[in-house]
Amino acid sequence: MRTALIQMSVAADREENIARACAFLREAAARDTDVAVLPEMFCCPYQNHCFRPYGEAANGPAQAALSALAAELGMYVVGGSLPELSEGRVYNTSYVYDRQGREIAKHRKVHLFDIDVAGGQRFRESDTLSPGDQITTFETEFGILGLCICFDLRFEELSRCMCLRGARVIFVPAAFNMTTGPAHWELLFRQRAVDNQCFFVGVSPARDESASYVAYGNSLVTDPWGTVLCRAAGEETILYSDLDLSRVDAVRHQLPILSARRTDLYEVREK
Amino acid sequence: MRTALIQMSVAADREENIARACAFLREAAARDTDVAVLPEMFCCPYQNHCFRPYGEAANGPAQAALSALAAELGMYVVGGSLPELSEGRVYNTSYVYDRQGREIAKHRKVHLFDIDVAGGQRFRESDTLSPGDQITTFETEFGILGLCICFDLRFEELSRCMCLRGARVIFVPAAFNMTTGPAHWELLFRQRAVDNQCFFVGVSPARDESASYVAYGNSLVTDPWGTVLCRAAGEETILYSDLDLSRVDAVRHQLPILSARRTDLYEVREK
Repeated sequence: MRTALIQMSVAADREENIARACAFLREAAARDTDVAVLPEMFCCPYQNHCFRPYGEAANGPAQAALSALAAELGMYVVGGSLPELSEGRVYNTSYVYDRQGREIAKHRKVHLFDIDVAGGQRFRESDTLSPGDQITTFETEFGILGLCICFDLRFEELSRCMCLRGARVIFVPAAFNMTTGPAHWELLFRQRAVDNQCFFVGVSPARDESASYVAYGNSLVTDPWGTVLCRAAGEETILYSDLDLSRVDAVRHQLPILSARRTDLYEVREK
Repeated sequence: MRTALIQMSVAADREENIARACAFLREAAARDTDVAVLPEMFCCPYQNHCFRPYGEAANGPAQAALSALAAELGMYVVGGSLPELSEGRVYNTSYVYDRQGREIAKHRKVHLFDIDVAGGQRFRESDTLSPGDQITTFETEFGILGLCICFDLRFEELSRCMCLRGARVIFVPAAFNMTTGPAHWELLFRQRAVDNQCFFVGVSPARDESASYVAYGNSLVTDPWGTVLCRAAGEETILYSDLDLSRVDAVRHQLPILSARRTDLYEVREK
């Protein structure tokens, strides 16, 4: 399963961002990509006051562009995320399109990013965004795949629930910053992969030092043993990674974690 | 709370091991240690055929020695682990003694170490050991503390359950090996600390390259931000670390993880 991690720059102009994303998707398709992944908020600056004006309702222009391109290119597109407008609310939402351009999944970020690190980053998504209320997985010819957005990754139960549903690859459009990125980005992706013995794919916007919120970049793939298969730096780029999904079963056989959980002592369950 | 991580060598002679542990405990007490921690199987070679002959029943010699010394020194002792004989079974058990020498906790390893890594380590604890069936925390003047043994750490639910009970420091006597140690030891301790925003203290036997099972060493402490506060190499040594427990609340305030869990979508619970 060839994945393309599109670590694109995000500019102030929404249409320009959508056009840039489409250009990168074409480039990925030319390299026989099965699943192309865009970053969190790929067409909107990561600022609270932008989310509503840059937002779109169902079948809005960014969604229409991604759907059309997925169909034209015959490639899965995990559409990073964009501000979704629905019933007066704004959600941080990721749309997934299959090779026919059908929307096969839609994840609204369920954990909003409200942090206040002493001497570091402060941000309150909940000032403008509303949280989703679903755990998101979807089926493909590669099996069940999972999807969450950025801060969602910090909550181990969410990844566990996706993997217990059978997900073997989890896609994480994300935008860590220059405080949390160096501290925890790679650590989180490696450990979630080790704990759940599956692949994790993190895709960030490219770093823009002049932005009010500076994304860390460092898009990466971790495998079921916790090895970093590829990792970008801060620049605009596409990374390609061929995921050997048989590694999931091999690692689970060698080091039984999921199967050796003491579910007689504790239980994680969806509600 | 001053902790002493006693990364001691484990020899073939049980009495010699107990005497060495006691000498290290005295040394730790002389440095005003509040909680001294011994490694997993500190008085028994880590081999399946040793567990039963090196085992002891309730109030056996190793337990008696640790209890007496805890009382004499007025120091908490987390007694690594030893083979416990009970009703014909053998458990991998950690005993904790308070400043009066009272046994205030006893953890039987609940996840037995059965792995078979291609080209790497193979071991089946379950050939000789029986698993415990309790999650273990205990109360001290430092608040609630948690305890698990080695492979237990790989199961995120166990650490989560201890922290949801209120544990702010988790002690982990452990003996990773030269396959899993370099791959996952530090990663696991850092990420469990980040996920649960508390301290983790891992204590290994010193490395003995001539042993049939070579312990990784690298005893360490990770703080609620995932920082490694101290870390040994392979040699026999005592590490000291002063844990500032106010860091737990500070980190949880800056980066709300435990409090922001979407328990309306998922739940971890003890059974």
